[in-house]
Amino acid sequence: MFFASDNSGPVPQAVLDALTEVNQGYAFGYGADAMMDEVRQRIRDLFEAPEAAVYLVATGTAANALALATLVEPFDTVFCTPMAHIEEDECNAPEFYMGGAKLTLVQGPDRMTPKRLTASIESQGNRGVHGPRRGAVSITQVTEMGNVYTLAELQALCDVAKSYGLPVHLDGARFANAAVSLGCTPAEMSWKLGVDVAVFGGTKNGLMGVEAVVFFDPAKAWEFELRRKRGGHLFSKHRYLSAQMAAYLRDDLWCDLAQRANAKAARLYDGMRSKADVRFLNEVTANMIFFQAPRALHQTLQAGGAKYYVSGGVLEDGPADGLLTGRLVCDWSLPDPEIDRFVSLLNSA
Amino acid sequence: MFFASDNSGPVPQAVLDALTEVNQGYAFGYGADAMMDEVRQRIRDLFEAPEAAVYLVATGTAANALALATLVEPFDTVFCTPMAHIEEDECNAPEFYMGGAKLTLVQGPDRMTPKRLTASIESQGNRGVHGPRRGAVSITQVTEMGNVYTLAELQALCDVAKSYGLPVHLDGARFANAAVSLGCTPAEMSWKLGVDVAVFGGTKNGLMGVEAVVFFDPAKAWEFELRRKRGGHLFSKHRYLSAQMAAYLRDDLWCDLAQRANAKAARLYDGMRSKADVRFLNEVTANMIFFQAPRALHQTLQAGGAKYYVSGGVLEDGPADGLLTGRLVCDWSLPDPEIDRFVSLLNSA
Amino acid sequence: MFFASDNSGPVPQAVLDALTEVNQGYAFGYGADAMMDEVRQRIRDLFEAPEAAVYLVATGTAANALALATLVEPFDTVFCTPMAHIEEDECNAPEFYMGGAKLTLVQGPDRMTPKRLTASIESQGNRGVHGPRRGAVSITQVTEMGNVYTLAELQALCDVAKSYGLPVHLDGARFANAAVSLGCTPAEMSWKLGVDVAVFGGTKNGLMGVEAVVFFDPAKAWEFELRRKRGGHLFSKHRYLSAQMAAYLRDDLWCDLAQRANAKAARLYDGMRSKADVRFLNEVTANMIFFQAPRALHQTLQAGGAKYYVSGGVLEDGPADGLLTGRLVCDWSLPDPEIDRFVSLLNSA
Amino acid sequence: MFFASDNSGPVPQAVLDALTEVNQGYAFGYGADAMMDEVRQRIRDLFEAPEAAVYLVATGTAANALALATLVEPFDTVFCTPMAHIEEDECNAPEFYMGGAKLTLVQGPDRMTPKRLTASIESQGNRGVHGPRRGAVSITQVTEMGNVYTLAELQALCDVAKSYGLPVHLDGARFANAAVSLGCTPAEMSWKLGVDVAVFGGTKNGLMGVEAVVFFDPAKAWEFELRRKRGGHLFSKHRYLSAQMAAYLRDDLWCDLAQRANAKAARLYDGMRSKADVRFLNEVTANMIFFQAPRALHQTLQAGGAKYYVSGGVLEDGPADGLLTGRLVCDWSLPDPEIDRFVSLLNSA
Repeated sequence: MFFASDNSGPVPQAVLDALTEVNQGYAFGYGADAMMDEVRQRIRDLFEAPEAAVYLVATGTAANALALATLVEPFDTVFCTPMAHIEEDECNAPEFYMGGAKLTLVQGPDRMTPKRLTASIESQGNRGVHGPRRGAVSITQVTEMGNVYTLAELQALCDVAKSYGLPVHLDGARFANAAVSLGCTPAEMSWKLGVDVAVFGGTKNGLMGVEAVVFFDPAKAWEFELRRKRGGHLFSKHRYLSAQMAAYLRDDLWCDLAQRANAKAARLYDGMRSKADVRFLNEVTANMIFFQAPRALHQTLQAGGAKYYVSGGVLEDGPADGLLTGRLVCDWSLPDPEIDRFVSLLNSA
Repeated sequence: MFFASDNSGPVPQAVLDALTEVNQGYAFGYGADAMMDEVRQRIRDLFEAPEAAVYLVATGTAANALALATLVEPFDTVFCTPMAHIEEDECNAPEFYMGGAKLTLVQGPDRMTPKRLTASIESQGNRGVHGPRRGAVSITQVTEMGNVYTLAELQALCDVAKSYGLPVHLDGARFANAAVSLGCTPAEMSWKLGVDVAVFGGTKNGLMGVEAVVFFDPAKAWEFELRRKRGGHLFSKHRYLSAQMAAYLRDDLWCDLAQRANAKAARLYDGMRSKADVRFLNEVTANMIFFQAPRALHQTLQAGGAKYYVSGGVLEDGPADGLLTGRLVCDWSLPDPEIDRFVSLLNSA
Repeated sequence: MFFASDNSGPVPQAVLDALTEVNQGYAFGYGADAMMDEVRQRIRDLFEAPEAAVYLVATGTAANALALATLVEPFDTVFCTPMAHIEEDECNAPEFYMGGAKLTLVQGPDRMTPKRLTASIESQGNRGVHGPRRGAVSITQVTEMGNVYTLAELQALCDVAKSYGLPVHLDGARFANAAVSLGCTPAEMSWKLGVDVAVFGGTKNGLMGVEAVVFFDPAKAWEFELRRKRGGHLFSKHRYLSAQMAAYLRDDLWCDLAQRANAKAARLYDGMRSKADVRFLNEVTANMIFFQAPRALHQTLQAGGAKYYVSGGVLEDGPADGLLTGRLVCDWSLPDPEIDRFVSLLNSA
Repeated sequence: MFFASDNSGPVPQAVLDALTEVNQGYAFGYGADAMMDEVRQRIRDLFEAPEAAVYLVATGTAANALALATLVEPFDTVFCTPMAHIEEDECNAPEFYMGGAKLTLVQGPDRMTPKRLTASIESQGNRGVHGPRRGAVSITQVTEMGNVYTLAELQALCDVAKSYGLPVHLDGARFANAAVSLGCTPAEMSWKLGVDVAVFGGTKNGLMGVEAVVFFDPAKAWEFELRRKRGGHLFSKHRYLSAQMAAYLRDDLWCDLAQRANAKAARLYDGMRSKADVRFLNEVTANMIFFQAPRALHQTLQAGGAKYYVSGGVLEDGPADGLLTGRLVCDWSLPDPEIDRFVSLLNSA
């Protein structure tokens, strides 16, 4: 009953097979491998963006930080939510790669709104040389709290950014889960809205560690390449990244994996809904469930073998009825019986 | 006949098998996987360094830049040769990670000498606040020109560094090739000489992209961890790095692969030695051969299908007897018949 | 009627005289001038800190950013208020000098409280390698909104910092105004509370552009010197900074100037208090007044010649009874008749 | 007999007077003072560059580092000589401000030649993503060894830079001494040759600490302003920088001071020429003399009260006939009798 993260499960056999398949003879390194040509073409096709510049890196932190560094200057600020991965979980990587640019936090709960984004942008960039310049807007889809912005919501945020002339970065660590949830195409969830650079994540959806960075305007492609190398993120034996991403793109594997993960979350959610004492904190349409429940219930679940993160207090110590938040993340490989066992454990508690 | 690089060949089956083997169920991420425990223990044993801090990253550039950044301050300078990978081939990654620290180039040919290193150190660090402070010494073994320092030579360099109180970084992208060539233990080629942090390379010796950074004094271990995360070099699905390195360490695979690569270079060298017009620029004891030959000869070789880098002039255009330098690199997988075909091509030219 | 800033007035004659006096013959540069010896001794005496390391720089931004960079690492975060000069008015200088470290904003109004500081510290530094490490606490005295922390309030904040092992930086751009307001000694307002490094500002209190950075523990003195030079903030003709600061310290000029500035603000405040429609937003005990008043009143004042910043809306356009905030800053040189004229203008409006 | 540096003497009375004159009432800060308007206009007129963007900073290190940071990207390299101030004397400030960009040293003696510059540029920028990109060329006039490039020599260097599409930075810490020596106009020594940004130094020629940075193409003016603020180099009480520079520009004071300094060096040189045992290492046409002489002679001179830097060995210890290099720098204020005393001391030794 492992619900701790979608970066902890195995990779599908097709990915292993692709590694074996590509492991033949010599291949040019540093992104000049033939497999990368396939990847580039497939991503351009998938995104309906024939001019897009496409790059692979091995971690989401690298993907985000390099993308932002290519968009902004060191004297700029980037607008994101207080829960954004770039703010909370990357140990100052964005600031490092951006040369000391700042993150300005758009106040409010998980989802940015046009109003709050506007207020945040208005609070910066109007102090002349004294404050940072407005740099870019960074949006996470699926959000860190497991919500999926609708296309209309994303459109409204992009519109705000564009009205200030700001580029938009989409942190798509769970891009596939969102697209599947919305039933939209990658293009509809990115450049058609005004997204300038999208991270098309693979790591949380079944790859060993591959993220595609997609620049819809290739003007800064060479700069990105230099920044990637300078960051130590250019693989010499690049084909092993390419092969994984190629497998991910073939036969809509990316879609298939995300559908599975989302379906598992839905199954879990369905099983949990009728339980008294449980309050859901997000709309469960992707692969994450945030729920509030009494400490005693969390203790029972975890004692029964469920693994997931709890926040809002100490699990082991405190009043039995104290409310704690649990985060359940489903990856593509989660066995249904484990889900059912969790549900059963919950409902019998 | 691919001699262009040792980062272009396939990985051995044992590495693929290890990936398959580790690809079961859930594993904690970010270096907390059980396989990393094995790796850590094996490296400590191999290096006879029970206290060493051991970390994995995916590229040599990251390994070097992170290691140096942990050793020095932004107002320091690092001493290396003009041909050092950190100077020539990392697109300012060391300067980036070190926060703007400088590289001071120890003049002379490929191998640093104690005298030249001393002169270089003396040229810096004596201008008070005006010049950079002396930071660290970086030595590459095998050198970029394919030479292997003897242990006595390394000892003399480390002694110079220590006499100035400077830490020593060993860029061991081809650590295995050197150790095998010298017939020494990893400990003898590192901390026993005074090396403070060694990069134990796997990528150029058969892995997909894994380097171990070994701090013999663990005092700065946590700082390294933070810097690695901040650089975007901490893998969430870390087990796939661990598994490769574990396979590399089991049954002395690292040794076996390096022996093969070195033996192939020796076979190639033996076949080339008697050829008139060919002058060797390095001592061939590891897996690289640098040779000078007339342009016409290079043209014949490459037209015949040999792939390798040529420097010192344009291959296609110039006098037939103009001397150009060729670099031949042998990886573990190079088929002997290809070597023999190259030798035959050369000697019949 | 110039109330726009305390960095816009003239310097007292004693400072000009000191420049003339020091302008004789040759003097060693880069801080090795004899006048700096006097400055160092006077500041050590003033702060009752015989071991303190004392440095001069020309701007407050440099003083703050260099001090913080000496205290923290690039993977750290510094706790300050959302209104802090280092957050609002230094165009990412702290992030630049700290190599990409972050500022974490302690929510709430102008003055930090121990409770909010604790909450902010608790929100960071507990995510292991994922989040930034806790770095330092930065407190501004006088605050950006013109309030003066009591010694007990400062003590409580320092106690929180120390309970987490964090160093404390005091942004003392208006150090003199605060000390005079509290009637305390510089030592009582700094190291006796637990402050590790204080910026003892001169620029807003009568100098052309000189700030002293005082490290009560000299352990990092040499690092600061290297960072200052590297930032381009070490003056070759340092005596012209020293002379200004020496004049500032002689005969308690710093105290005298601050008393004047504070007295002028008190005179202004007294004259404004009885006016209906005016609401004061800070406790006026130093040299700044923040007041809320209807747009029409601000328009009248500014049309009458008063110069000061207005925020919260557009001065020229909007409902006459819309409330806007005015900031009045008094410097030492403000003529009393100007104050009286402003008061008269206000009360007759 | 102070010949140690031209940053150690007093400022002329006109500069002090200008400070007194400007010290009246309130003035807008941060470069918006009326005196800066005068400075901007005077520099545009002087340089015959009506569009130029003109900024003041207080140190040469800041001027150079900010100018270069505005010209290049962090993944670039800047070409300069091994003796350049930016390489030798700024404690990694250029690397810091450029975000980790590198300096590539154009080998050879003091003066760059087109041939060596070309070779250096050719050695970089051709390794694709692996090496740094070519960024800019930095030329120092007067050179660090006291030589003055002819206009033809500068033209040839600029031509090389332009043939590679590289911008040119002129480190003009002694711009005035060079222009006076060449008898040329500032325009002839800068943009007419292809210089993109010139540092027009004041500090070594009589100011307390003011350098003008002149961008002949104002396209990056706003970026420079943001970088200056972010570096902590924007003065709030900017009028005190403006006033000094205004005085420097009025009545050709800058010219007059440089003529005096150069004349003093000429007088010194004339007195030294006939002395046996003295060998001159530079062409003395500006204000510096580098000379080689036996240790015993240096000892006699310094024992007699002459103050100057000696390099190439220890002054106090070694064979009497060991050759050491002395550097004599004349500033505008050097009394002729001191020069004559030095000459007499030398010739009677």
